[in-house]
Amino acid sequence: MSNDPRTEIETLGEFGLIAHLTKGFETSVESTTKAIGDDAAAIDIGEELMLVSTDMLVEGVHFDLTYTPLKHLGYKSVIVNLSDIYAMNGTPEQITVSIAISNRFSTEALEEFYAGIKHACDLYKIDLVGGDTTTSLSGLTISVTAMGRVSKRNVAYRDGAKDGDLLVVSGDLGGAYMGLQILEREKSVFMNTEGVQPDLSGNDYILERQLKPEARMDVISNLADKDVVPTSMIDISDGLASEAIHLARSSKLGVNIFEDKVPIDTTTYNAAREFELDPSMCALNGGEDYELLFTIPQSEFNKVKNDPLLTVIGHMTDEASGYQLVTKSGTQVKLTAQGWDALIQRDLSTDS
Amino acid sequence: MSNDPRTEIETLGEFGLIAHLTKGFETSVESTTKAIGDDAAAIDIGEELMLVSTDMLVEGVHFDLTYTPLKHLGYKSVIVNLSDIYAMNGTPEQITVSIAISNRFSTEALEEFYAGIKHACDLYKIDLVGGDTTTSLSGLTISVTAMGRVSKRNVAYRDGAKDGDLLVVSGDLGGAYMGLQILEREKSVFMNTEGVQPDLSGNDYILERQLKPEARMDVISNLADKDVVPTSMIDISDGLASEAIHLARSSKLGVNIFEDKVPIDTTTYNAAREFELDPSMCALNGGEDYELLFTIPQSEFNKVKNDPLLTVIGHMTDEASGYQLVTKSGTQVKLTAQGWDALIQRDLSTDS
Repeated sequence: MSNDPRTEIETLGEFGLIAHLTKGFETSVESTTKAIGDDAAAIDIGEELMLVSTDMLVEGVHFDLTYTPLKHLGYKSVIVNLSDIYAMNGTPEQITVSIAISNRFSTEALEEFYAGIKHACDLYKIDLVGGDTTTSLSGLTISVTAMGRVSKRNVAYRDGAKDGDLLVVSGDLGGAYMGLQILEREKSVFMNTEGVQPDLSGNDYILERQLKPEARMDVISNLADKDVVPTSMIDISDGLASEAIHLARSSKLGVNIFEDKVPIDTTTYNAAREFELDPSMCALNGGEDYELLFTIPQSEFNKVKNDPLLTVIGHMTDEASGYQLVTKSGTQVKLTAQGWDALIQRDLSTDS
Repeated sequence: MSNDPRTEIETLGEFGLIAHLTKGFETSVESTTKAIGDDAAAIDIGEELMLVSTDMLVEGVHFDLTYTPLKHLGYKSVIVNLSDIYAMNGTPEQITVSIAISNRFSTEALEEFYAGIKHACDLYKIDLVGGDTTTSLSGLTISVTAMGRVSKRNVAYRDGAKDGDLLVVSGDLGGAYMGLQILEREKSVFMNTEGVQPDLSGNDYILERQLKPEARMDVISNLADKDVVPTSMIDISDGLASEAIHLARSSKLGVNIFEDKVPIDTTTYNAAREFELDPSMCALNGGEDYELLFTIPQSEFNKVKNDPLLTVIGHMTDEASGYQLVTKSGTQVKLTAQGWDALIQRDLSTDS
């Protein structure tokens, strides 16, 4: 390839790269209802849609085994995919799990990993139905695909928001990011006691948010009970700002987020202060919270206002108004998606 | 992990390892019709089943970029998964493609890879509906998931063969393996002209069998035209012997294969002779042919006997008779699954 023109993959960014590589692909199969560009693909199976979502996790990029117990890693690998199915307002039913492993891993280590997968299957009532197990030359790579279902009238895409819709988020934000900061700080301790996995029996909230997140099955069933169908929805994997912009851009709208409404847990707040970070920035740009971000018509406000799982943090505006953050002081500033990757400054690594 | 008991993953073998790790998993979701243990999982969607199959391909383990053009690699990554859907007597409709890449790869290189994927999508009439693109610390890892459909009355599992059923194979065998031998021999040439990909414009049959295999869409539609529903079916990825034993074991039967019936192309035969290999052993144990191996009742013999795509190579017996190869000299020897991995002596690599 040395004589050919060479464009570094970093120049496009992840989303740009995917868009670039898949731009020539058009769909031609009748059953394909939603292809690339949402949390999950949707396939027409009659009255319902089959939802399919897939994620790949790479050692040294997405997880660090110095402080990540394999059981938690197995659990989290499943959760991140279930979250994508919930983000379509669907119910996950099956997963496949593929792993590439080097012989650094023993059978016992893999048993731990699969115990975490089984725990997620039991708790979220899904079946492991397939996968692949293969050798890698170094490290661990995990690929999970989740399948789920949703009725056609309940499906929530990213592009259905309307001007004036309320923007709602579940749970609280920034915790997973602050958990990561603490783990990175403690890493040197684990480095000096090689082979010993961190003892996380204390189950501190933000460590758990990072190492063993949950997917919001409860939020989806709450919405169904209230008879609320989000006009658009996405899960927060890269950060609130990034995902809010995704919803707005997909729906050809603008968005206003009110900084003082963004839910932050006290533990997250205190940890951010300790690290001399702005808690709001951590909540806006810290990723991996796996909360749900969605829009509903203003007429549905009464149905969500007293739900302890949900917070109204803003509203959709017309496209020309752009993406705005209304700060605590009332100033309007441009909302930018730094994203989790930018925050932690992970570069594409060098490989010769 | 150093203080814990340690069982090396090699001790169980790939199939043993998967069986071991997934043995505690039971299915509890009503729609799960077939989970682990067949070419694809099957999910009940009404009158039809949704089929899901996934494979992971790792650079340095499953492919060598010294002699594999990225466009062919993209194509093959899709084909190996479509083959699994056909092996259920189904029709593939959608795929997802995830890749982990190091920055050794340029955008132009990835464009080549996706051009191969698009070519497969166009030819097999399937849609790319999702995936993930992420960084790796070294090399390229590919994970493809294929979805397809089959009516419940036409699905072919591995476990449906009956004593006395005829064993039928499509196409010819051993070609992909001999193609690999030639490529490995030529590798030193490519190594000395770094960065130049092999020119395969001559399109020699066995090189193409290795680098750009096809999935047997034509065989599935032929069988449908003849109104033949296989009692059991599998695709040949690891080798004829291995797959025949899979069918027999899953169906709780024995199997007889007649060496002189095993279809071998002249090019494959001559290449085996040149390498001083037994052509029959190459056909029995060489993998990656992606032909279909299936069983039909004897009463269906007239429907397949003149089909140029199909060869009857044996029959199923009772379980006690075991797995037998009837050699050209008429001697009966135990059929053993050396498998492709064993043939090419690939070991789990060392990683520190």
